[in-house]
Amino acid sequence: MKASMDKIVNLCKARGFVFPGSEIYGGFANTWDFGPVGVELKNNIKRAWWKRFVQEDPSTFGLDAAILMNPTVWDASGHTQSFSDPKMDCKNCKQRFRADNLIEEHSKGSVSAEGMTTEQMENYINEHKVKCPRCGNFNWTPIRQFKLMFETSRGTVEGEKDVVYLRPETAQGEYVNFLNVQRTARAKVPFAIAQIGKAFRNEITPGNFLFRTVEFEQMELQTFCKDENSMSIYENMKKKALKFAEDVGLDKDHLRFHDHEKLAFYAKAACDIQYLFPIGWEELNGIHHRSTHDLSRHQEFSGKSQAYLDPVTNEKYVPSVIEYSIGADRLTLALLCEAYDEETLENGETRVVMHFHPAIAPYKVAILPLQKNLSDKAKEVYSVLSKKFMCDYDEAGSIGKRYRRQDEIGTPFCVTIDFDTLEDDTVTIRDRDTMAQERIKISALPDYITKKIEF
Amino acid sequence: MKASMDKIVNLCKARGFVFPGSEIYGGFANTWDFGPVGVELKNNIKRAWWKRFVQEDPSTFGLDAAILMNPTVWDASGHTQSFSDPKMDCKNCKQRFRADNLIEEHSKGSVSAEGMTTEQMENYINEHKVKCPRCGNFNWTPIRQFKLMFETSRGTVEGEKDVVYLRPETAQGEYVNFLNVQRTARAKVPFAIAQIGKAFRNEITPGNFLFRTVEFEQMELQTFCKDENSMSIYENMKKKALKFAEDVGLDKDHLRFHDHEKLAFYAKAACDIQYLFPIGWEELNGIHHRSTHDLSRHQEFSGKSQAYLDPVTNEKYVPSVIEYSIGADRLTLALLCEAYDEETLENGETRVVMHFHPAIAPYKVAILPLQKNLSDKAKEVYSVLSKKFMCDYDEAGSIGKRYRRQDEIGTPFCVTIDFDTLEDDTVTIRDRDTMAQERIKISALPDYITKKIEF
Repeated sequence: MKASMDKIVNLCKARGFVFPGSEIYGGFANTWDFGPVGVELKNNIKRAWWKRFVQEDPSTFGLDAAILMNPTVWDASGHTQSFSDPKMDCKNCKQRFRADNLIEEHSKGSVSAEGMTTEQMENYINEHKVKCPRCGNFNWTPIRQFKLMFETSRGTVEGEKDVVYLRPETAQGEYVNFLNVQRTARAKVPFAIAQIGKAFRNEITPGNFLFRTVEFEQMELQTFCKDENSMSIYENMKKKALKFAEDVGLDKDHLRFHDHEKLAFYAKAACDIQYLFPIGWEELNGIHHRSTHDLSRHQEFSGKSQAYLDPVTNEKYVPSVIEYSIGADRLTLALLCEAYDEETLENGETRVVMHFHPAIAPYKVAILPLQKNLSDKAKEVYSVLSKKFMCDYDEAGSIGKRYRRQDEIGTPFCVTIDFDTLEDDTVTIRDRDTMAQERIKISALPDYITKKIEF
Repeated sequence: MKASMDKIVNLCKARGFVFPGSEIYGGFANTWDFGPVGVELKNNIKRAWWKRFVQEDPSTFGLDAAILMNPTVWDASGHTQSFSDPKMDCKNCKQRFRADNLIEEHSKGSVSAEGMTTEQMENYINEHKVKCPRCGNFNWTPIRQFKLMFETSRGTVEGEKDVVYLRPETAQGEYVNFLNVQRTARAKVPFAIAQIGKAFRNEITPGNFLFRTVEFEQMELQTFCKDENSMSIYENMKKKALKFAEDVGLDKDHLRFHDHEKLAFYAKAACDIQYLFPIGWEELNGIHHRSTHDLSRHQEFSGKSQAYLDPVTNEKYVPSVIEYSIGADRLTLALLCEAYDEETLENGETRVVMHFHPAIAPYKVAILPLQKNLSDKAKEVYSVLSKKFMCDYDEAGSIGKRYRRQDEIGTPFCVTIDFDTLEDDTVTIRDRDTMAQERIKISALPDYITKKIEF
């Protein structure tokens, strides 16, 4: 892998993949705007995921639930009670840290802060005189719990409060709609509900470009199943998730399973797929066996039975849930890192090229008239191809420069229009990866490209 | 049009188009969750819009900006100062009303409350003894300004505040990225930036199903142009917007232009396209000539020049903006209403059928084995077709009932697998609208369907 995070960030800004959010106002911490090229890349990634997991699977059903939910949902899920980070500030340098991270780093991983109370964490830090990793002083504020859910108010008049949360995860949408989907799709357990949507977490120290952002998009599916089949469904989900990551373009040597050693009290198994980002091995997605916890909690808090009635055996039970969740932004980042390459050409120049899978490449084809007086013909070709594919059109600069620009945004095919095109309706089509060129009829282009971009 | 709002809401719940948000918790006012059928419908509508306005137009560039923006953006846009509704409560029946609506309804439209101060509105209501439309009493609280932007806090510690807003419109994303997009796309004025994304408005009395919701998705594009060309671009946008509405499936007799008589001080022209909803003629989308107002304000508040340098004439100027904005949820509602039909069949039964344009129909084709022992072959057909199209698979109930179900979700084609299929690899394909059936080779299905669903 030749990408450093800096190179990726710079390319993204320069070529219109991703801009800092609200940039003209000095930005807004850890928000990012997808530019003309980035929005296509991300949409293609979301489509590839939806195709694989929803379109091609007759037992998975889509959903798009609202971001704003009844606040009781977050009581049932446990988020209002315990979704927070323990923070403390160094009084000397004003830097803020997570207390649990301080303990785990100080003990070099030999002590786990998971499950520690605030008092226990404070005691540990005081006893071991854990110092500020930044300035080296030992001068801490007490630990304060920092809520990770963004709060807003539906309050009908100023002064009155009526708290609403921005969802910190999308999965609750599937849980509360379990029976709605089951009934309308006449689905039989096991079946899954899939969703792509935004979630928000008010984290203090997110960062690393798209890796961790306060606003992010999740792609996830929840499989509802009988407990006795749940472990094999969990294992299958791991395989399917890994296969998708590979098929969409990640090198298998940059992917690995990471089983969780510590589990939530209700969980039966949990595992991440990690990707070798420029910042090291980090979580790309999670697969979690959540037992009957989620539906049971919603049954308890809503007072509505969440039991499924098996139409064959007449058994009635609350299903277990296997969760598979992957961040669309994080996967986009992984694919940007994976695709990035620098090649030295014969003339000694460096070619930066993004080797995206053609299915997720922002533009499928660029139409390039060799000279300006060929632009009428080129626009004709553009108007035919743009009915089927996202195309770029470029008539500015030398053909070499134009190729370089397309390489940098990962366009798999460049079509050049020359004077022969006017005679015989053929064009030159150039392959991004091999740089090989071939002559082809304009009328053959749609089928040619369609076949190459299949996912 | 045969649809009443009740019929549409009921069909949507029964067939998995749309469920009330957080339904098991008694719902959450004016939020809606798109079910398995609805999410496909809405995604197809968004894709059709994107294809028409972005993919097929070389001078329009996509964007996907963050929902959370630097708060100064909303000072520049004027939202923090003036985006609120004047509300008053009836002390007798506790119902809350917009003061401006009360005045306009009382005067039967002869008085406009636009531009009235709070004091002027209170005076009018007191002088005319405007009564509560609900209980008939005259017993009002004073007018209070109700902010329409949802507020949240990025505050790093509880107690400290650091206000952030949920964007009430997506357009500011384009404005603040004007030069980022122009630079990276090397775009020449006139060009447009397009975006699809969520926005939020804390309105008290929204309603009418998807027509007005607190959380909604906008599809909009902002054309940046020189003032001297702006009126012709405005007029063209009106035509393109109307053509899209017709092409995507709305009857031209149910669409009309509605020019605004009163304009914002900076606006040069404004017009809605209205659609004949079951609740009457209402705004479907807006086209607004906003002059140089938006970029000038951002230039002022950010201190960064928003001028465009014309590479040919060397002129430097802040462009005017023509805005076209349409609600994805509202268009979905319009298309649901338009598509709805009840037909009386020869046997006297009523067929409910959704005549969606095939391009936006949730499922393109349903695969129906005539008998259960044909399901292996049917699943084979499903696995071929589902690589290309969103397909439904149904083997439960009589074939007549299964056709009815597909009609109610607007599936344009049903493919039945029978015993002849096993012999000669042919199937019967049934057209949703004409109910005509024809025999066709399985291998010919992909091309057959592809042609019919073009947009």
